[in-house]
Amino acid sequence: MTTRLVVIGGDAAGMSAASQAKRLGGDDLEVVAFERGRHASYSACGIPYWVAGDVDDEDDLVARSPEQHRANGIDLRMCTQVEGIDLDRGEVSARSVEDGTSERVAFDELVIATGAVPVRPPLEGVDSDGIFGVQTLDDGELLLEALRSRDPRRAVVVGAGYIGVEMAEAMVRRGLEVTMVDQADEPMTTLDTDMGRYVREAMEGMGIQVRKATPVRAFETSAGWVSGVVTDKETVAADMVVLGLGVRPNTELAKDAGLPLGRYGGLLTDLRMRVSGCENVWSGGDCVESRDLVSEEFLHVPLGTHANKQGRVIGTNIGGGYATFPGIVRTAVSKVCDLEIARTGLREVDASRIGFRYVAVTVDSTSRAGYFPGAAPLRVKMLAEHRSGRLLGAQIVGGAGSAKRIDTCAVALWNQMTVEEMTALDLAYAPPFSPVWDPVLIAARKAADQLAAG
Amino acid sequence: MTTRLVVIGGDAAGMSAASQAKRLGGDDLEVVAFERGRHASYSACGIPYWVAGDVDDEDDLVARSPEQHRANGIDLRMCTQVEGIDLDRGEVSARSVEDGTSERVAFDELVIATGAVPVRPPLEGVDSDGIFGVQTLDDGELLLEALRSRDPRRAVVVGAGYIGVEMAEAMVRRGLEVTMVDQADEPMTTLDTDMGRYVREAMEGMGIQVRKATPVRAFETSAGWVSGVVTDKETVAADMVVLGLGVRPNTELAKDAGLPLGRYGGLLTDLRMRVSGCENVWSGGDCVESRDLVSEEFLHVPLGTHANKQGRVIGTNIGGGYATFPGIVRTAVSKVCDLEIARTGLREVDASRIGFRYVAVTVDSTSRAGYFPGAAPLRVKMLAEHRSGRLLGAQIVGGAGSAKRIDTCAVALWNQMTVEEMTALDLAYAPPFSPVWDPVLIAARKAADQLAAG
Repeated sequence: MTTRLVVIGGDAAGMSAASQAKRLGGDDLEVVAFERGRHASYSACGIPYWVAGDVDDEDDLVARSPEQHRANGIDLRMCTQVEGIDLDRGEVSARSVEDGTSERVAFDELVIATGAVPVRPPLEGVDSDGIFGVQTLDDGELLLEALRSRDPRRAVVVGAGYIGVEMAEAMVRRGLEVTMVDQADEPMTTLDTDMGRYVREAMEGMGIQVRKATPVRAFETSAGWVSGVVTDKETVAADMVVLGLGVRPNTELAKDAGLPLGRYGGLLTDLRMRVSGCENVWSGGDCVESRDLVSEEFLHVPLGTHANKQGRVIGTNIGGGYATFPGIVRTAVSKVCDLEIARTGLREVDASRIGFRYVAVTVDSTSRAGYFPGAAPLRVKMLAEHRSGRLLGAQIVGGAGSAKRIDTCAVALWNQMTVEEMTALDLAYAPPFSPVWDPVLIAARKAADQLAAG
Repeated sequence: MTTRLVVIGGDAAGMSAASQAKRLGGDDLEVVAFERGRHASYSACGIPYWVAGDVDDEDDLVARSPEQHRANGIDLRMCTQVEGIDLDRGEVSARSVEDGTSERVAFDELVIATGAVPVRPPLEGVDSDGIFGVQTLDDGELLLEALRSRDPRRAVVVGAGYIGVEMAEAMVRRGLEVTMVDQADEPMTTLDTDMGRYVREAMEGMGIQVRKATPVRAFETSAGWVSGVVTDKETVAADMVVLGLGVRPNTELAKDAGLPLGRYGGLLTDLRMRVSGCENVWSGGDCVESRDLVSEEFLHVPLGTHANKQGRVIGTNIGGGYATFPGIVRTAVSKVCDLEIARTGLREVDASRIGFRYVAVTVDSTSRAGYFPGAAPLRVKMLAEHRSGRLLGAQIVGGAGSAKRIDTCAVALWNQMTVEEMTALDLAYAPPFSPVWDPVLIAARKAADQLAAG
């Protein structure tokens, strides 16, 4: 007797789950997957680089085409929106976006991988032409088409998070004058403000205008196309606008089905990614909250790396294996032109809120031996708990070759190392790769010394 | 009453110890340091890049000049060879290399940081002009002078370890035809043979001739200058020869003083870098053996990063503080032109000898998302213990941006993580930095799956 798995959402988490379940489950497992859009299994993280011109073809961003999934035995139904989940009957109802026909499909196991939806503030003019999101391949195509057909001169990026800074780079590389408008005190609020200031100064050095602490009040239009971004201080002229205001879990369906949601509106799961309180419903990717191993809180951290891992864990468990997703430590990396930005663990604001007493240190070093060509400035900030000395978090901002060092801190954090222990870590050294004291070791030592001094 | 610290050896370990001790000890500590050469505190690791032309000036390789050390209150005596240690009297005898005068200097604390000496095989012709070592700044100066004055066309590098491959790159970049001759089955014996083969093939692709499994029998000369490297199969014509045959601990003085040496001829110390069985004698850097935390053996791993750490630990302890050097996991990194080479932990040959039963996996991935410009091939090999699943070692060979990932494995190894645990690590992902599954995670997963399959 076959089991039927229904997957809602055809991107990273959903299709990783589907593929892995099918690989393990074989002919005993029937897999039906629904995707409301025209693309499945694509790298949304790659869209800024496609817009920038680093990536030529949107097909390059597609990890596996619908045809490839079907060849692997997955019944993938594109342009099909799931409109309801009936947990009692074990059915979903789905409607074709193209011809409007509906059907009900029964499931034995269900994966909810509905992802996230971009935050769009309810401001006057926000739905005007010329204002672009950066969520789907279709968004990217619209944006590129506007660049081609309208030859804009001035771009305004609203929001200074990962997507915002990446899109600012893309617009700079396309030759536009770029202004970034953001309500926070400094860009990149996933960093502490002092590190955000460093990022802002570097962006300003690249010619990007940054309007910080500046909420957007409305959008002006001219002849039906956006022409300005209105703030309390000024109206910033714009030939196009990119919104990078973050996303929230897309969990309306789940909520309507009576599934419990967490503090940030995401689904909550157990270690194996089974939705809390359910026997046969699983969820992963941008629609779930994940356990932060440092704060022990559930947080909404929508990143492709988690989506892929969680999807695979789901697929392994449905396919009869055993796998867990223990949690995250909030590692993330980005760049704006030559400036690399990385973080893991807690910021000062997190540590304070949770109740940690801590020391925070900042050190300036270089990406390579100081005398080696291409040695770039690199700043590390590190937090450690008072008395225990346990690493709580780290942030790195620097030139080429800086950011992936955050992985060293992420693994140390994962293992609850103290900064004193970290000072002895046997990290790789040679002049083209690092100063003889890796910047992470210098920061750990400074933190350890500060803790020892009381 | 002041304490007098005598330091033998003015490079990384010795001067780190001297500086840190003086910083903590202040006026109560008198520090006398002896260096037999003309340079102190320089980066020997930087010499290949100076020869290659990456670094313009030998002064760039000097971290701190003798004058700077003296300004910090260290009585640094250059060109002064210590010829004997009298532990009973607490004295060293030293002789000026320049004027031959001798003196005896009493110590309360002694640091032996005499480094290592290059291996020079007792072959006919090995002392001919035109055969260069790469140990000291003077070696580098002689080599550069020969490149300038003789305009050589063909260089032969003898030895295919770190120094060998780095010097092969330097010679290629200087426009010479380069042949590398080595007795081992493949280059880079710090890697397993299969990974060494990958390195060799890449080097051959760069136009470097590699003669593997080819012991050198003698050197031919013509008009007093080296003209060929004699092997069993052929004599390789050479206008200059670079020796990169490794080093051994420089511990004659210590041995003559009756101090116990380890299996590889290095000094043995406790956790605080105090020489075993001694109250007031300390040692660090290339003249000691270090505890390998994976094999639990003492090994001779002469690297600048260990020397600096050990020196600082010694200085802290002598200065009245507390610091330990728990050991190493044998992390190392190098490159030859665009090919990066890194390793940590055990090779298969080590694991077998020690008695581990293990699985070894190899995966091919890329340094960035596959679609991102500059994504370079990257191969990871990973070893994990049977049943326990504990990571035993990893090796990485790949293009730009590959090698520093070894730090992830080094921290995992340090924390005795299993490969199953590693599959969940929250490593940084964005398309310019990594595929969505970091190659280290892919390797860990393959190893974990192979272990689970029995």
